[in-house]
Amino acid sequence: MSAPGSPMSKKNSTPTPRLRLAAPRGGHLLPGGGPAAKGTLHLIPVGLGDAPVDSWLPADARALAARLDTYIAENAKTARAFLKQVGAVRPIQEITIHTLEARTDASQLREWIKPLKAGAEIGLVSEAGCPAVADPGARVVDLAHAGGHTVKPWVGPSSILLGLMASGLDGQRFAFHGYAPVNPEERARQLKTWEQQSARANQTQMLIETPYRNGAMFGTLLASLRGDTRLCIARSLTTPTEWIRTQTIAQWKQGPAPDLDKQATLFLFLAA
Amino acid sequence: MSAPGSPMSKKNSTPTPRLRLAAPRGGHLLPGGGPAAKGTLHLIPVGLGDAPVDSWLPADARALAARLDTYIAENAKTARAFLKQVGAVRPIQEITIHTLEARTDASQLREWIKPLKAGAEIGLVSEAGCPAVADPGARVVDLAHAGGHTVKPWVGPSSILLGLMASGLDGQRFAFHGYAPVNPEERARQLKTWEQQSARANQTQMLIETPYRNGAMFGTLLASLRGDTRLCIARSLTTPTEWIRTQTIAQWKQGPAPDLDKQATLFLFLAA
Repeated sequence: MSAPGSPMSKKNSTPTPRLRLAAPRGGHLLPGGGPAAKGTLHLIPVGLGDAPVDSWLPADARALAARLDTYIAENAKTARAFLKQVGAVRPIQEITIHTLEARTDASQLREWIKPLKAGAEIGLVSEAGCPAVADPGARVVDLAHAGGHTVKPWVGPSSILLGLMASGLDGQRFAFHGYAPVNPEERARQLKTWEQQSARANQTQMLIETPYRNGAMFGTLLASLRGDTRLCIARSLTTPTEWIRTQTIAQWKQGPAPDLDKQATLFLFLAA
Repeated sequence: MSAPGSPMSKKNSTPTPRLRLAAPRGGHLLPGGGPAAKGTLHLIPVGLGDAPVDSWLPADARALAARLDTYIAENAKTARAFLKQVGAVRPIQEITIHTLEARTDASQLREWIKPLKAGAEIGLVSEAGCPAVADPGARVVDLAHAGGHTVKPWVGPSSILLGLMASGLDGQRFAFHGYAPVNPEERARQLKTWEQQSARANQTQMLIETPYRNGAMFGTLLASLRGDTRLCIARSLTTPTEWIRTQTIAQWKQGPAPDLDKQATLFLFLAA
């Protein structure tokens, strides 16, 4: 039996030999033998646009974000706006914000997360949405795992997940591809390849585009995909201009084009 | 210019001909011409396990869920437990809960969502996590789109998204496959195919398993994948027994197996 109060005690109905038991959260066994300090890298989602924080962040995540004094952020300016939104408990200029760029080297990242060894808590935030999904934050998470530290993901907004839920397309199997190729011929060819993959594996396909090119992407999707393929447009999720619609390519061709200009949009499709 | 107070007015800096302007949320134009009533299908995530609601649901989603009087649910019992958690404003026995099964036919679903035409609000909830992702709820969403109704996704917990964030694997490109084949040979072959796809497209692969078979799946992953492929185990997310770790297959082989028995687990891997 596990010791009373152990996080494992509820779920283990049969005794497990001590040696085979994975350490609970915060007490990883390092390859060297001794337990690591209880440092935690908190992965904290930020908003997707103009919307009140209580509509997209759980109260506990908000309270945690408000009390941390060290952040690694994709963009220091948006990180400070986020700290204002959550009501940071100390003056924002006293909060350490390290700016993470694609070119930031690993030795610098290791330096930033060093305080985890002494039990510190550090927040990781993206420019919008969930950190380490479609942004460079995954490198920081990877180093935290390598050091045996606890990585704690918090619930928050992701346009990919919200779009998938709201599309009505099959959520049992899906793939997110990021950006399609820019060259028009390669782009059309790639969309057709993804459509074949969708038909073969019954897999919903998801992609994004640079906001000013959204209208062009919509046109290419209509020109490249089959008439019976269902396309979902999920625009400006969580904000006042949120707009989500799913129809077949043939139906989209009959109606007016949606206004997607400069608005973050997720494109999803599923072949018939 | 858009009318003052229009949700479009902030983002559109240049005037757009009225005909080309997509209708804002709640005012879709139906193929027939007239605007639909402002019925809304709310997609509301529920918890993944034993955890306080304020740690995984934004306050606004909680307040909305507490006031709705009609739900479509994958499981009526867990839906009632959720309504208790969020503090439903009326007695739970007075709240209508339709139970959605894989075999529920489309005419029944259409009957359930009929009140949307008169402007009603209906909640859609899964047994755990986000509705319409890896559950039968997508059919209801699809019918709501077909009727021109507003579909509103709310932020909440998804083991797929939380696991992806916390894995440290590449979040730029990823695929979720649901369950692997049960037959041992097919399973090993499928895992290898996904590993090749991961190497080719630099795409993180995600799968789940029936909880009592998690230990066996862990063993098959170790036996099937290459030594330098990174594997993340994300167990019991958001609950007190949450445990997340990423290592190479070679490293996993050296240490003790994690205890995954009867605990919801997401498996993620990325080929080197």
